[in-house]
Amino acid sequence: MEKIILVKLGGSLITDKEKPFTAKMDVIDNLTRQIKRATEEDPTIRLIIGNGGGSYPHYPAVKYKMSGEIKSEEQKIGFCEVQDAAAQLNRIIVRQLLNNGVKAISANPSSMIIAKNGKIKEFFIEPIIELLKLNIIPVLYGDIICDEKFGAKIFSTEQILSELALRMKKRKIEVSRIIHNGMTKGVLDNKGQLIEFIDEGKFKKMKQCFFKTKGYDVTGGMLHKVEESLNLAKNNIKTIIINGVFQEDLLKKAILGYDCKGTVIS
Amino acid sequence: MEKIILVKLGGSLITDKEKPFTAKMDVIDNLTRQIKRATEEDPTIRLIIGNGGGSYPHYPAVKYKMSGEIKSEEQKIGFCEVQDAAAQLNRIIVRQLLNNGVKAISANPSSMIIAKNGKIKEFFIEPIIELLKLNIIPVLYGDIICDEKFGAKIFSTEQILSELALRMKKRKIEVSRIIHNGMTKGVLDNKGQLIEFIDEGKFKKMKQCFFKTKGYDVTGGMLHKVEESLNLAKNNIKTIIINGVFQEDLLKKAILGYDCKGTVIS
Repeated sequence: MEKIILVKLGGSLITDKEKPFTAKMDVIDNLTRQIKRATEEDPTIRLIIGNGGGSYPHYPAVKYKMSGEIKSEEQKIGFCEVQDAAAQLNRIIVRQLLNNGVKAISANPSSMIIAKNGKIKEFFIEPIIELLKLNIIPVLYGDIICDEKFGAKIFSTEQILSELALRMKKRKIEVSRIIHNGMTKGVLDNKGQLIEFIDEGKFKKMKQCFFKTKGYDVTGGMLHKVEESLNLAKNNIKTIIINGVFQEDLLKKAILGYDCKGTVIS
Repeated sequence: MEKIILVKLGGSLITDKEKPFTAKMDVIDNLTRQIKRATEEDPTIRLIIGNGGGSYPHYPAVKYKMSGEIKSEEQKIGFCEVQDAAAQLNRIIVRQLLNNGVKAISANPSSMIIAKNGKIKEFFIEPIIELLKLNIIPVLYGDIICDEKFGAKIFSTEQILSELALRMKKRKIEVSRIIHNGMTKGVLDNKGQLIEFIDEGKFKKMKQCFFKTKGYDVTGGMLHKVEESLNLAKNNIKTIIINGVFQEDLLKKAILGYDCKGTVIS
């Protein structure tokens, strides 16, 4: 199989984090069109997309206090509501991909994964591998997953994509890089300046300086993204964090492997 | 675990088969309310729901000629469109269950199953088992599945529920019965009269007499339903086929185990 590229569409990029259940359709349309053009320009590329949840699952996650173990009947309703919200947004992304001529199918993490003690225990990745063989893009997302110990646990899109990449690697299916599309130019220092490169050593020195991300993020924000990326770097998977907002066709360039402004983590 | 009951909501019952992408919201509301009342009356009941696709996946399935092997790029688009359509209707069912106070979560067959040569090869049922432990209802549906040989293959809700029941049985999780909700009183003979009971012997004699079901059905209709039911009967799983249209709270009664008008297959 060709080398695979993961594309993360950030939750705060594709939804209005100030308004519950509000997708930014213009941004989603733009990103999906860039994906279409990239795959036309280089048909050998194989993509896996993961969309963040943003203001969709965030509201029920906060309302039903879904950060810890499930202890009440109310939280079981919360489990269902968070899953429904996350799946709703994923449908919008897949629909827009299809509308723009990109062959894409939902891969529903809560149907493919079970966790135990907050860690992914089993991940049924076979449908994803089969979709890639057909050159259809699987579209995953941050989701709430059954946990044998805690009842349920929310996993970020980053966590799910990382776990997927590592499990594919064990099956000799190589992921070359992951492209994060967010609201900033990349990782910023405490003066708001772009940090163009991060590795393990540099990260240890700068960990305290991270700017808080705009809006809220039920699964962690920029610090979490960098930590997941360093974990992938140990497995020779490079991360590129770019600005997903409109101008410059940055996502298309990043997919095609051109140099583009952002933060590289390797 | 308590004994489990499967509930099939027929595609021609919950959608307008004459109009593409049209859900019958009044019928769906009524059925989901019956499910709510049944689970309130007997909280020990554990349910798994499967919704048919009706006029949602049918149109793209016909448009893209999805009955056989995937041979063209057009059919790959068809694969995506059929999956999207089936998932859209499933979201409507889950949302209405939640609106009526039923704890329910989508279990996406195309994310849990891969097929080979038109048969289900692997079925990752762990999330379904975990949801049942939490007393949350998994909601499956007829779906288009990756097939290692054919590319993709459409499986009916009946096929998926049957396969699930048999795989659960192997794990010592017993399914007691399956309740089909359709547009007729049950299985009808060639004079339109209800056949109250069918077993293997009776079926062989009557096979030629089946009425055609109203509307169309991409995955088979009443004959297919009876054949799947006889397969389950061999494994001590009883089928009850009832009329899902409104009056008499038939679904609620059938869930609670009361006698109700319909066809029993065992």
